[in-house]
Amino acid sequence: MISGNTKLIVHLGYPTGSFRAPMIYNPFFEKHGIDAVVVPMGCKAEDYSEFLRLVFRLSNIHGALVTMPHKVTTMALLDEASTTAQVAGACNAIRLDPDGRLVGDMFDGEGFVRGVLRKGRELSGKTALVVGSGGVGSAIAASLAKAGVAQLSLFDGFEPSMLGLAARLRQAYPGLSVNTGSNDPAGYDLVVNATPLGMKEGDPLPVDVSRIDPSAFVGEVVMKTEITPFLAAARERGCQFQVGTDMLFEQIPAYLEFFGFRSATADELRAVARIAY
Amino acid sequence: MISGNTKLIVHLGYPTGSFRAPMIYNPFFEKHGIDAVVVPMGCKAEDYSEFLRLVFRLSNIHGALVTMPHKVTTMALLDEASTTAQVAGACNAIRLDPDGRLVGDMFDGEGFVRGVLRKGRELSGKTALVVGSGGVGSAIAASLAKAGVAQLSLFDGFEPSMLGLAARLRQAYPGLSVNTGSNDPAGYDLVVNATPLGMKEGDPLPVDVSRIDPSAFVGEVVMKTEITPFLAAARERGCQFQVGTDMLFEQIPAYLEFFGFRSATADELRAVARIAY
Repeated sequence: MISGNTKLIVHLGYPTGSFRAPMIYNPFFEKHGIDAVVVPMGCKAEDYSEFLRLVFRLSNIHGALVTMPHKVTTMALLDEASTTAQVAGACNAIRLDPDGRLVGDMFDGEGFVRGVLRKGRELSGKTALVVGSGGVGSAIAASLAKAGVAQLSLFDGFEPSMLGLAARLRQAYPGLSVNTGSNDPAGYDLVVNATPLGMKEGDPLPVDVSRIDPSAFVGEVVMKTEITPFLAAARERGCQFQVGTDMLFEQIPAYLEFFGFRSATADELRAVARIAY
Repeated sequence: MISGNTKLIVHLGYPTGSFRAPMIYNPFFEKHGIDAVVVPMGCKAEDYSEFLRLVFRLSNIHGALVTMPHKVTTMALLDEASTTAQVAGACNAIRLDPDGRLVGDMFDGEGFVRGVLRKGRELSGKTALVVGSGGVGSAIAASLAKAGVAQLSLFDGFEPSMLGLAARLRQAYPGLSVNTGSNDPAGYDLVVNATPLGMKEGDPLPVDVSRIDPSAFVGEVVMKTEITPFLAAARERGCQFQVGTDMLFEQIPAYLEFFGFRSATADELRAVARIAY
């Protein structure tokens, strides 16, 4: 029940029609008596920087969830950004610290990493190929680096994105081996599709699945169907895998911790969420 | 259940701790499947004009409820204000019209008037004394004029408020007889306390109750207790009366109509509201 004491978490993006966070967080807050509410706000790009400044001056603001098209823009509006946000070059969560500073982090990749770990796989010291260096690929690469992978290979048809991400990774993690330019999945412990391939009927597969090691773990970001053609092929090959929505639900506990709320497992969150997926 | 399609009604004021509207509207919206939510926002005076402009650029904004300290400031920020808002000199509800114009109205007095009418009393052609020419007194006077009273007397110890209100009433309602400067309640059909007298123990009564006609209707704006000392004295004298919270609940249907939602009676609203009063 919203009252004048309820803490606001504004969900900023445009358009808002496909927002899922309110239907995940709000039932959870209600169930656990947390006096907070996620409020979708369709803020357009041209208004964003000024609106963000003012919305964080509200007396009952607690934080923000940031989505398209503001994740990159937000970086320039923060007082402090986590290493993960800096490497990803984007921010999807903002917290107001007690001293009034805006602190940002990026949890898209953290959800991916938590999902992998929770399936019993290790990441520390492992090798990974991330295909796609856009927003979600950058976030996943940043979180894999944080999770301690030893070697990270990047591939993207748009070279500036790939090389920029590689440079930020090398700067933040000098001990990490970063390679670019090949999407051959042979020999990796982890292979991730972070491209939109699989959204449309007839899309090619993002990598040559026949060259993935059957002991490798395969991850997917496309959420259009649970088992995408890429995952179907990897499963056929015997690989353990993670579906796109796992990343979504596994990242929520990280947000809850970031905002200072009682945390929960992804399964607890799925159980109360009022969305179909 | 809030989703990305939910219409936002922002409740703007500072501080927010005593806000009641969310606990009145939101259970009503939920019960009737209206996809809208009232969200309290603690906006400080120095941020208000810029925040109001930007919040009304959100793609899912529907309207605003305005409370202290912004009711007067709002008047200069509208594209159009109702006659009632102009006479009251204040606005407590803003709607975004399809053409993008901000349209404001003032319903504090409308709630008072609806309460009186629903108790079976007429206002058209009657005489009224409104003691107190501050925000709520001005709103009540404006709505009484709209409701067609023939003669309206104003009293306030702070002369500029009283004379300003009288001037605005005379300009908007040339046929209305407006008097100022006496709080003698003798001979009026309606006597209203629109001062804070009754909030504190030991406050004097706002008028000499022994001079109120027993057939007069007596109204109160103080909500601290249901039966204030003023109402107790009026009841003792045999007068029909209206308590402070009646004004609150009776005005909600007017807002619902203003915002284009399904309306309801004050009793329906009281039945689902989650506030004690």
